[in-house]
Amino acid sequence: MSEFLRLEKPCIALKKFLTQIPAAELKTESIPTANAMGRICASSVFSPESSPSFNRSTVDGYAVHAIDSFGASEGVPAFFKIIGEVRMGEKPDLKLVTGEVALIHTGGMLPEGCDAVIMIEQAQTTRENEIEVSKAVSQGENTILAGEDISPGQEIVGAGKLVRVVEIGGLLAVGIQQIEVFRKPVVGILSSGDELVAASETPLPGQIRDINSAMLSALISSHRGIGKVFELMPDDPEKMLAIAEEAFKSCDSLVITAGSSASTRDYTARIIQSLGDPGVIVHGVNIKPGKPTILAVCDGKPVIGLPGNPVSAYIIASLFAIPMLRRLTGEVDPIPQIRGKARLKVNLASLAGREDFWPVRIKQIDDEWVAEPIFYKSNLIFTLVNADALAIIPEDANGVEAGSLIDFIPLG
Amino acid sequence: MSEFLRLEKPCIALKKFLTQIPAAELKTESIPTANAMGRICASSVFSPESSPSFNRSTVDGYAVHAIDSFGASEGVPAFFKIIGEVRMGEKPDLKLVTGEVALIHTGGMLPEGCDAVIMIEQAQTTRENEIEVSKAVSQGENTILAGEDISPGQEIVGAGKLVRVVEIGGLLAVGIQQIEVFRKPVVGILSSGDELVAASETPLPGQIRDINSAMLSALISSHRGIGKVFELMPDDPEKMLAIAEEAFKSCDSLVITAGSSASTRDYTARIIQSLGDPGVIVHGVNIKPGKPTILAVCDGKPVIGLPGNPVSAYIIASLFAIPMLRRLTGEVDPIPQIRGKARLKVNLASLAGREDFWPVRIKQIDDEWVAEPIFYKSNLIFTLVNADALAIIPEDANGVEAGSLIDFIPLG
Repeated sequence: MSEFLRLEKPCIALKKFLTQIPAAELKTESIPTANAMGRICASSVFSPESSPSFNRSTVDGYAVHAIDSFGASEGVPAFFKIIGEVRMGEKPDLKLVTGEVALIHTGGMLPEGCDAVIMIEQAQTTRENEIEVSKAVSQGENTILAGEDISPGQEIVGAGKLVRVVEIGGLLAVGIQQIEVFRKPVVGILSSGDELVAASETPLPGQIRDINSAMLSALISSHRGIGKVFELMPDDPEKMLAIAEEAFKSCDSLVITAGSSASTRDYTARIIQSLGDPGVIVHGVNIKPGKPTILAVCDGKPVIGLPGNPVSAYIIASLFAIPMLRRLTGEVDPIPQIRGKARLKVNLASLAGREDFWPVRIKQIDDEWVAEPIFYKSNLIFTLVNADALAIIPEDANGVEAGSLIDFIPLG
Repeated sequence: MSEFLRLEKPCIALKKFLTQIPAAELKTESIPTANAMGRICASSVFSPESSPSFNRSTVDGYAVHAIDSFGASEGVPAFFKIIGEVRMGEKPDLKLVTGEVALIHTGGMLPEGCDAVIMIEQAQTTRENEIEVSKAVSQGENTILAGEDISPGQEIVGAGKLVRVVEIGGLLAVGIQQIEVFRKPVVGILSSGDELVAASETPLPGQIRDINSAMLSALISSHRGIGKVFELMPDDPEKMLAIAEEAFKSCDSLVITAGSSASTRDYTARIIQSLGDPGVIVHGVNIKPGKPTILAVCDGKPVIGLPGNPVSAYIIASLFAIPMLRRLTGEVDPIPQIRGKARLKVNLASLAGREDFWPVRIKQIDDEWVAEPIFYKSNLIFTLVNADALAIIPEDANGVEAGSLIDFIPLG
């Protein structure tokens, strides 16, 4: 295929591509904190107050001035008078003097002058309203002091950080009910090929339903983007260009799946090149499946050219469009994706110098996962439907023997 | 704490709980296939047609009757006349006789009588409309035959299986545009404690904002449920019971976070017990944090009692409410959750016989992940905000030494 300049290693191709996507000039929006799960913070958020806002007990017991308990032991216990009870959710109206304690519950507010709590299990009731304590408590013991969790001005979530369940908790704990997040990027989805009809139509002989658009749209939605599907493009360079230019204007990024014929594959690269500068950055990746991948940045917007084959399109989109979306959503330093480890059931051939992604079934056998490769012809979507994961055959391997441990990524 | 009958191992507690949730009588709904990502199929779906629906070429080349090429070699090449071109997306109107081929593109429909394709790279053009071929092709070579991916009546997705991106592709490929999925279960969220005010309110001294409701709601939504937050329950057994009974009627399941005081913790178990039979199955789990967990099934509906402390509530909900949701959503045989492996940076103490979950930061150092534990007091939500993952200290370990490899689960 004459169009190939050079086959790039997948990791280098990705790096070249991502570094060309300009620093985000991302639009932001303000949304309720409670609905912000999975969104990316647009600016750092700082705490307006202390949490907790008052000194709290972490146990059920007796609030005390710690120094009053010093020296207490089995031989010489200390005795305390219980002068009242701290009610939950109220500021206690109790003033303790030496030799006095107040009954307190987990989460209760420490009365003035108290700085520790004696656990209920460590106190013996001797008479009504009197306890005997045979072990001293230290200052701060069994309490959380005001501001010990967070204090005013401390950062809660940094700009570019993902809002998880726990960030929702932290933000609401200090009264932040609304936050500024980046808008979801809109990714235009274009599919080309005279053989395609919309998935909702009945194909005539020689035609097939376009399934890439719906698959890419689902993949993009589940990775914090908005997939916008455009009309199918025929194998006609002028019409393709017109549709692509229109889509390019209204989207933050494009993903174009080339038709499967050679002519459409040729057009695709040229059309992407014409959308803006610098244009095509990588054309051809040393990977199986997905060799004819195109990675481009046109006037600041990333554009990916995927192979038309749905199996290749899905695998390449997983490898390149998901990291692209992370960048477009403004996320910084995400935790690396966790891979599973499984024992390979049969030998797998591969070429050294090329990274292979094999659909596999994953079964648990005793305490171990076993990966059983699914052998397939190009283009068979049901190969993936029957698979649990993609096994990764590293670039430096010249085949992998049965019994080896291999990495896998679950299909999403 | 007198209420503890026996501390169960976490894995046994979960098993006892899940097996008591009755076989699903789940409601279903019909939704567009393209929107079904992450939903669970309510009944098996079978293919109504073949895919592909016609014999297709998988390469660019020349459609041929394979037998015509037999015997072709470098020394004795075969010559073929090109009688036309198969246009993409059309049924070719070509009838080939011996010695004839047709130009065909990847994805093109094989003309009648053709059963193989000669790759363009393996043919030399000798004269106009004539090629020379020096290698035979076998029957079916470089083609996908009709029905080779899936045939009518074959199962596409089984009942109880998750719809992923690839199932959307597979279903649409054979024209299934609408599928029956289980409805999302509604999980009622109840929080109790006189010290709580709604997260939208400003707490008075001694009061704190309820953050558990919003955190649980976000966690439930991201695991295919619908969280329904009810009014806060005061520390009053009669009022608690009334609110819990009302919520129980309108939900498929309840998650109740107990107030942090001892009295509320006591009420919670009794209220759950009174909701229906068999009631409380597990009361107390040998785990840190989260010991006072309650797992119950009341008249067929699962009910979980969580500790009021937000850190414990989040960890216990992750461990018990997510598998419960899987069961309520009708999912069968999910792939086990993948855990990461990291090297522990410092010694961690733990008690043998108890499973510990420690908030950790995960950093990549060279080729390895390193887990740095965050030491914390009970109740500090920002401990989790600062964490990337929970490290798991197994039940049989009596502490873990720095440098050991440990499992972790990323925070979601």
